[in-house]
Amino acid sequence: MKTLIKNGTVVNATGTGLADVLIDGETIAAVLAPGSTLLGFDLERNVDTVIEAAGKYVIPGGIDAHTHMQMPFGGTEASDTFETGTRAAAHGGTTSIVDFVVQYAGENVLDQYKAWHEKAAGQCAIDYGFHQILSDVQDSSLVAMDELVAEGVSSFKMFMAYKGVFLSDDGQIVKAMQKGAENGALMMMHAENGSVIDLLVEQAVRAGNTSPYNHGLTRPWQAEEEATHRAIMLANLTGAPLYVVHVSAKQAVDQIATARDNGQNVFGETCPQYLYLSLEDNLGAQSDEWGAFEGAKWVCSTPLRSKAEGHQHHMWQALRTNDIQMVSTDHCPFCMKGQKDMGLTDFSKIPNGIGSVEHRMDLMYQGVVDGHISLSRWVELTSTTPARMFGMYGKKGVIQPGADGDIVVYDPNGHTSIGVGKTHHMNMDYSAYEGYEIDGHVDTVLSRGKVVVDDNRYLGTKGDGKFFKRGLSQYLI
Amino acid sequence: MKTLIKNGTVVNATGTGLADVLIDGETIAAVLAPGSTLLGFDLERNVDTVIEAAGKYVIPGGIDAHTHMQMPFGGTEASDTFETGTRAAAHGGTTSIVDFVVQYAGENVLDQYKAWHEKAAGQCAIDYGFHQILSDVQDSSLVAMDELVAEGVSSFKMFMAYKGVFLSDDGQIVKAMQKGAENGALMMMHAENGSVIDLLVEQAVRAGNTSPYNHGLTRPWQAEEEATHRAIMLANLTGAPLYVVHVSAKQAVDQIATARDNGQNVFGETCPQYLYLSLEDNLGAQSDEWGAFEGAKWVCSTPLRSKAEGHQHHMWQALRTNDIQMVSTDHCPFCMKGQKDMGLTDFSKIPNGIGSVEHRMDLMYQGVVDGHISLSRWVELTSTTPARMFGMYGKKGVIQPGADGDIVVYDPNGHTSIGVGKTHHMNMDYSAYEGYEIDGHVDTVLSRGKVVVDDNRYLGTKGDGKFFKRGLSQYLI
Amino acid sequence: MKTLIKNGTVVNATGTGLADVLIDGETIAAVLAPGSTLLGFDLERNVDTVIEAAGKYVIPGGIDAHTHMQMPFGGTEASDTFETGTRAAAHGGTTSIVDFVVQYAGENVLDQYKAWHEKAAGQCAIDYGFHQILSDVQDSSLVAMDELVAEGVSSFKMFMAYKGVFLSDDGQIVKAMQKGAENGALMMMHAENGSVIDLLVEQAVRAGNTSPYNHGLTRPWQAEEEATHRAIMLANLTGAPLYVVHVSAKQAVDQIATARDNGQNVFGETCPQYLYLSLEDNLGAQSDEWGAFEGAKWVCSTPLRSKAEGHQHHMWQALRTNDIQMVSTDHCPFCMKGQKDMGLTDFSKIPNGIGSVEHRMDLMYQGVVDGHISLSRWVELTSTTPARMFGMYGKKGVIQPGADGDIVVYDPNGHTSIGVGKTHHMNMDYSAYEGYEIDGHVDTVLSRGKVVVDDNRYLGTKGDGKFFKRGLSQYLI
Amino acid sequence: MKTLIKNGTVVNATGTGLADVLIDGETIAAVLAPGSTLLGFDLERNVDTVIEAAGKYVIPGGIDAHTHMQMPFGGTEASDTFETGTRAAAHGGTTSIVDFVVQYAGENVLDQYKAWHEKAAGQCAIDYGFHQILSDVQDSSLVAMDELVAEGVSSFKMFMAYKGVFLSDDGQIVKAMQKGAENGALMMMHAENGSVIDLLVEQAVRAGNTSPYNHGLTRPWQAEEEATHRAIMLANLTGAPLYVVHVSAKQAVDQIATARDNGQNVFGETCPQYLYLSLEDNLGAQSDEWGAFEGAKWVCSTPLRSKAEGHQHHMWQALRTNDIQMVSTDHCPFCMKGQKDMGLTDFSKIPNGIGSVEHRMDLMYQGVVDGHISLSRWVELTSTTPARMFGMYGKKGVIQPGADGDIVVYDPNGHTSIGVGKTHHMNMDYSAYEGYEIDGHVDTVLSRGKVVVDDNRYLGTKGDGKFFKRGLSQYLI
Repeated sequence: MKTLIKNGTVVNATGTGLADVLIDGETIAAVLAPGSTLLGFDLERNVDTVIEAAGKYVIPGGIDAHTHMQMPFGGTEASDTFETGTRAAAHGGTTSIVDFVVQYAGENVLDQYKAWHEKAAGQCAIDYGFHQILSDVQDSSLVAMDELVAEGVSSFKMFMAYKGVFLSDDGQIVKAMQKGAENGALMMMHAENGSVIDLLVEQAVRAGNTSPYNHGLTRPWQAEEEATHRAIMLANLTGAPLYVVHVSAKQAVDQIATARDNGQNVFGETCPQYLYLSLEDNLGAQSDEWGAFEGAKWVCSTPLRSKAEGHQHHMWQALRTNDIQMVSTDHCPFCMKGQKDMGLTDFSKIPNGIGSVEHRMDLMYQGVVDGHISLSRWVELTSTTPARMFGMYGKKGVIQPGADGDIVVYDPNGHTSIGVGKTHHMNMDYSAYEGYEIDGHVDTVLSRGKVVVDDNRYLGTKGDGKFFKRGLSQYLI
Repeated sequence: MKTLIKNGTVVNATGTGLADVLIDGETIAAVLAPGSTLLGFDLERNVDTVIEAAGKYVIPGGIDAHTHMQMPFGGTEASDTFETGTRAAAHGGTTSIVDFVVQYAGENVLDQYKAWHEKAAGQCAIDYGFHQILSDVQDSSLVAMDELVAEGVSSFKMFMAYKGVFLSDDGQIVKAMQKGAENGALMMMHAENGSVIDLLVEQAVRAGNTSPYNHGLTRPWQAEEEATHRAIMLANLTGAPLYVVHVSAKQAVDQIATARDNGQNVFGETCPQYLYLSLEDNLGAQSDEWGAFEGAKWVCSTPLRSKAEGHQHHMWQALRTNDIQMVSTDHCPFCMKGQKDMGLTDFSKIPNGIGSVEHRMDLMYQGVVDGHISLSRWVELTSTTPARMFGMYGKKGVIQPGADGDIVVYDPNGHTSIGVGKTHHMNMDYSAYEGYEIDGHVDTVLSRGKVVVDDNRYLGTKGDGKFFKRGLSQYLI
Repeated sequence: MKTLIKNGTVVNATGTGLADVLIDGETIAAVLAPGSTLLGFDLERNVDTVIEAAGKYVIPGGIDAHTHMQMPFGGTEASDTFETGTRAAAHGGTTSIVDFVVQYAGENVLDQYKAWHEKAAGQCAIDYGFHQILSDVQDSSLVAMDELVAEGVSSFKMFMAYKGVFLSDDGQIVKAMQKGAENGALMMMHAENGSVIDLLVEQAVRAGNTSPYNHGLTRPWQAEEEATHRAIMLANLTGAPLYVVHVSAKQAVDQIATARDNGQNVFGETCPQYLYLSLEDNLGAQSDEWGAFEGAKWVCSTPLRSKAEGHQHHMWQALRTNDIQMVSTDHCPFCMKGQKDMGLTDFSKIPNGIGSVEHRMDLMYQGVVDGHISLSRWVELTSTTPARMFGMYGKKGVIQPGADGDIVVYDPNGHTSIGVGKTHHMNMDYSAYEGYEIDGHVDTVLSRGKVVVDDNRYLGTKGDGKFFKRGLSQYLI
Repeated sequence: MKTLIKNGTVVNATGTGLADVLIDGETIAAVLAPGSTLLGFDLERNVDTVIEAAGKYVIPGGIDAHTHMQMPFGGTEASDTFETGTRAAAHGGTTSIVDFVVQYAGENVLDQYKAWHEKAAGQCAIDYGFHQILSDVQDSSLVAMDELVAEGVSSFKMFMAYKGVFLSDDGQIVKAMQKGAENGALMMMHAENGSVIDLLVEQAVRAGNTSPYNHGLTRPWQAEEEATHRAIMLANLTGAPLYVVHVSAKQAVDQIATARDNGQNVFGETCPQYLYLSLEDNLGAQSDEWGAFEGAKWVCSTPLRSKAEGHQHHMWQALRTNDIQMVSTDHCPFCMKGQKDMGLTDFSKIPNGIGSVEHRMDLMYQGVVDGHISLSRWVELTSTTPARMFGMYGKKGVIQPGADGDIVVYDPNGHTSIGVGKTHHMNMDYSAYEGYEIDGHVDTVLSRGKVVVDDNRYLGTKGDGKFFKRGLSQYLI
């Protein structure tokens, strides 16, 4: 199968250029001056498919480095399976995800790793990799870290919150970080002070403050700033590189910026929800209990932050200044009916999570249209840096010979309406971005050379997506 | 003329990849998976020249955005002509320079601009562009700024030092910056407090402290830090983007980092001399007056900084953290005999400048070998960011179809000995890096598709290099 | 003349205590446990006057370290003479001023110093000292600095604005600072970038923007922040202690705070106008030209800052954190009729200045009532630190044996209405604080043991106030 | 009993003055101009005792706000009893201590409080107050906090280290801080990350690194900086004022300075050991095991820091800039024989602590002689600020009528040799400052009007010292 994408504007992390892209089988064979000929050799005649991309952007497929497909959590399970979630991702121009293998306290890391492979194998529409979650840090977990790096799982996530579920204490974190410093793995951190949050939640519930809005109030920015600083210091002590997931508070951004200015390998990821949504959304409709409970749609952790405090503005700026390096989704979908409503009378029972794996590329492109970021920065934040950060660059995150044929043809003159009855393919009974209008459109999506989405139609097959082994981070300084 | 560079490791700003590069005429036609065939079409048979690059780096030609060829200064003239200087640059793997048109106070900007074109036309071995220096800011100068942007001169340099020669007062700087904010031009600044320096120099000379070492002592870091901060505030006031040239003091770096964290378009350039050399070099041999005067070889402004104070260490870190974005040379060569020796009895008469246009790519590659920066960062600092910063990207600074065939094949297993009797082609009777050994070698240099240097031999012709018009900066946030 | 102030609450910079204060002649003889007896010795019987202060604060008399009585400026002269200004000060609980001897460029420093003595001698209601202004820095000025320190004039003020009138260039500032570092004098700075301001003023006037509001717009915070940083760096270079006058921008406060955290002897003064008034006042009534011109009442330099930007809030905080150490008035009164109205059609012709020497103690006490500062901090900011800063402590700024009997009995249950027809004694035809109500009252004021104001009546005599010689700063670290 | 201290130089926190001080019974009756007469009344004839203090400093008695007399800890008990420790303190010019009531996890706060009163009652040579330690935070502990504030115990100390002994988790800390924010109590914090330290200690011991030097290596600055920042954020969240005890790392100082610049009520205490001693002392003699074990003398927590890293220099600067506000001792003495030697083969068994209650005033006076701090700052750091910080000012920390007659006559021309066979009265078999020579001497010490030490002789009686009730902090902004 040979495909020529012709006359498009190829966008990469440093700029743009008019070029044809030739894909031979699963990989990119050449990037050529437009014209479909090379030294007189007629390319069009020699390929199976020609995709006309004049006036469109040809970009490396999106990489969403933070998803939770069918994750058991909070007494239920994330509502997207590997099948539904990755198909939705493909619709939105994302051709790779890195999902999380969960180890809860007491479980064996490698057992869990195998179990996750079984869940995902043969289900995915696009390629996938794994990060490994570590909760308690058993001696066997440290051994497993070496084995997993060899298996292509080069990043480990820990939690400073969710006591009894995920939380590692600081000594355990240091132990794992010591191993990361030794074998080169990237240490990822959910940075919120769980001990403080647990107290505030308990006090709120006891005081009868049970609506979803209290979710945000009981996870104040201080809890995030503090944990972020702590994680940075533990990384400083051990020499491990650190990646802070889903940064939402501007004060946490500042901690990351300071560490980076000091030359430490510290990185920050944010998500579309922290750029577009806010704590005030958790208020819901306020008409009655059910109205107020609408706020549960936007219950996630780290929580949405107050608009008045300027976190959104600061976060967009941090994306421009590279104080924050990546945008993932933390895709963790739950339906309102049967899942979120477990917390109808107690916000602390609402499963935490927002699903947006399908809309990240569009939402971030809207940031280009709105003047927040440049076109190149869009590609860098959503594909190139994720690939470099997590050791995939060369195969993913770039349009160059030898790379996988993961490509999106994006139409800046197209339009996308987000909403459950519209572009939505995720297995959620609501959309966190219901009614959002995007000034662009994902026209065609290729995964390793195969067109899997074209003109909103899914042309792929379950199991197209393969597991990829990742190397060590290519983004360290 | 068609050339195929085959089997090399193409390095760009975000990573590397094995690829062949095909150049057709002056521009790159394709980047292809190695193998020299495309869909069965045999490339080697259809090109004129094949360059074998297995085991070597194939990089976009170096861009030195800060040179002063045959600049009249300090009662003499920089010793490299456009001819000798650009030929030396080519030998060192630099395929583009951006030189400075000088306007001294009272002169007309456009007259000077024309004069510089006359000096350079038909002389250069590689492509060249111009920045325009503004000293006094006449009404006609502001008009000229618009005309020059249209001419492809999109950057203007001002000086906060050299009273009566170059210095603009703060009101004049604001006036020009207001124009820059309006027409998009990048404002460049020599940031040293000239008023303070003039006083210290006068006091030193009056006190009989006349050896070259006093050059550094009379240009303390405070003078640079202060002016850097001042330039940043004037840019903040006007909204103009700011590029600080030849940053040498760590405290100035910190000012730039702070401004950048605040989201301001502020950029910093450093030079190899601030990474490798130090104030202590200005001491010379100290054996006798002539020995001490050896220190004159390293008299430049901003001056070299004290090694003990840690500026070098901080500067390498700033290159990693992107607090400093580019490395240029500030190539401004003077011979010891007949030029530098004008200051034998008074350091303030020593023409300020160091020449290193020939050795920048090697010296920065040594930074890769020594573990200071990554391979990609080397290319980014010396070629890609200069191209983006100064509006050349797409034609320069990147290996992609449509770009100029400015390419260097660099051998990481080669070796380069720097010194007057060795690789040195600059018109200087000494080398600031005499005796330095580099663990790499510039094998082959192509300028717009033509091999101009191969295996240390110059194969080009005077006048190969053409003037290029630049657009606005492509690096603004 | 022996006076006993009994049963009051003595307030000093570190706390309070119930005590009687005995004044014998011009100086304080003792501070005693309340009861008016000592070891059985009946004090009341042995003094001439007893002042009952139960329920009242007994504080060291206010020291206003920044006044401009009858200063020739802007084509007119400040409207308070030494006589009227110091009498108004006494009414407001201020018992010492430090006024400025003016040297305009070209004038001889010591000649001016003599002239100022002639102006003030025999005129003042309270004690006075002098700072010396230096504009150009002649060789004779440097010599004069030593002589003046010996004369008790241990502080020198320079200007970074007002070109052709006051402005010193950076080299001149360094020259004077070198002398200050040598002889221990405190260097004071008007920190605004005059070159930038002159340009903005010229552009505004040329564009027809001539109302008083433009005064603030043409003196943006960047001009103050920049000059503040520059002054700090010049002080850092020379080792001189630096005192920045009338700080109004929060960004300038931050520069001072940073320098202080770094251990540099840098100090900042603010004024009541920057705590209570704002740029918006410069808008005037906006009803018509005359209405708009009401804004001229609040034209001063540094200018009032935008309320929305939070400068006031930040300044109160800086008073609490000791990032700003003192509150003076910069008392420089001009009448609306015949003086301010010189700028009716051109704001740049409005004499810059606000008079408040009479109301500083009250306005700052209101800060205690409003919860901005503590009672001790009130005394520290308005009396103790000024005394220490400017080498008067021991005689002034403290209630202790041997100190001058400069004492104010302040009634926290009293009330003061500010306004031209009310408490106002300054020679101004308006009050910048017209209509302000203060929850406290200056009951009795003693200057060197003599009651000069009691129950709003002036009981002193012209010439009561004497010149005092000051030592070097007692506040350096 | 009436005492007149005549002709001395009274030193307070803002300056000095020549004055006589009259003490009538237990309190200061008057501060008078020197001459021993008042309005003709002859004081000398009417007092019992006259102390000649010409040429000497008369200062408020030292307040050591951090001591641990006979504290059970680490399997032993601090070697000074309330009797021996307070007598040693008196010898050194300290007239008040604030000691810590210990609550270990599971114990009842008020029970412990009573027990401590029983230990101290009738034993002390000087006045004493108590802080209350909280380890676990039971519901009854929160109630006890209110009761204790009413009892004059207005400060509560918590630990972020010593798991299973003292450590409170972050939720517990927040709970207690919420109460502090409510009732005004000052929250004190031992800020070290115990979880990390426990791991490092365990790893070191397991690796056979058991000498005292490893104590410092396993308590790195990151553990202190981290916990300091965390404590600041928890205080920020709750609104409680925070006092960080025994700050030793410069990075922790910077965290405190930043919080203070932001207007938060955060305070820092350091100790003489962090100003004079260093990690290198923990190396001991290195001749053999016993030589190395000499290092145990200086095992304390927070640990001594590396001299090369500049902590000492930074700490002296912080004392000047008021980024650190107080100097206490953390007096926690253990003998080498029978106590410290419990850790001969395992540093983690060495009881942590250094005793210096006797030498604080001398060691800090040496800082005046050496030019680190001013005379006034000496008094402020060791007496006035401790009094204000902990709600004693007015009675303690100042020489003014109504204050307790706690006074030290200090001779700047005297001399003090520190060492076990010299001035040492503490119950320790070594001195951490053996051989230090001080250029000053504690001549006479009065405690509530009674001379308890004169010319190195102890003139007091066991039980002279009384418990004092403290109010809320008088140092909050």
